[in-house]
Amino acid sequence: MEKVNLAAKLDLIKEYWKPKIVAELNDSHVKIVKFKGEFVWHHHVREDELFLVLKGNLRIDLRGETLRLGEGELAVIPHGAEHRPVADKEVHILLLEPKTTVNTGDVRSERTVKAEWI
Amino acid sequence: MEKVNLAAKLDLIKEYWKPKIVAELNDSHVKIVKFKGEFVWHHHVREDELFLVLKGNLRIDLRGETLRLGEGELAVIPHGAEHRPVADKEVHILLLEPKTTVNTGDVRSERTVKAEWI
Repeated sequence: MEKVNLAAKLDLIKEYWKPKIVAELNDSHVKIVKFKGEFVWHHHVREDELFLVLKGNLRIDLRGETLRLGEGELAVIPHGAEHRPVADKEVHILLLEPKTTVNTGDVRSERTVKAEWI
Repeated sequence: MEKVNLAAKLDLIKEYWKPKIVAELNDSHVKIVKFKGEFVWHHHVREDELFLVLKGNLRIDLRGETLRLGEGELAVIPHGAEHRPVADKEVHILLLEPKTTVNTGDVRSERTVKAEWI
């Protein structure tokens, strides 16, 4: 059985905003991603999404409030909730979400990517 | 929307082998737990289970092999796979598993507990 070293996998990621799959279980994928800058506002119609900060600081803008997550902090964005991740500096994130989840949710843009295994 | 600080939640946990729920998303719970010593051999009939080591070192005995996870390492134990977590020293773990998951899987013993929110 394989184990995954998150830091080693993160070292392989050279581009921001492109989640990579590191594990699957049940109907979900565990992904890791590096963010820097501002993403697009979007929501996921059916999928709740978990963000766990592995390194750095993440801001998640929501309609009417702002979440600020530091290292070792997590939040679940429920399906339907519009959100926009923002990172002033590079931040490393673990995502947990159903396999059907697209990074830009209901929005299709040049930032929409299909997650691949790393 | 709430965020969860894993270290602060772990500070509240005083007993080993008793997973506590910190988040829910889709059909899954995110739990945290402290292990020390040796657990019972068990498997989960339907549920894959993710172990992420937050602090310390975890050994997972499997039939025919042994996984050793350090801080920042994760593994998925597929449903049906017999396993036994072992920790020589205290280890802090994040678990991700379907809401239906019982800690001792197919085995009922004095170590079987119903996870509660923390």
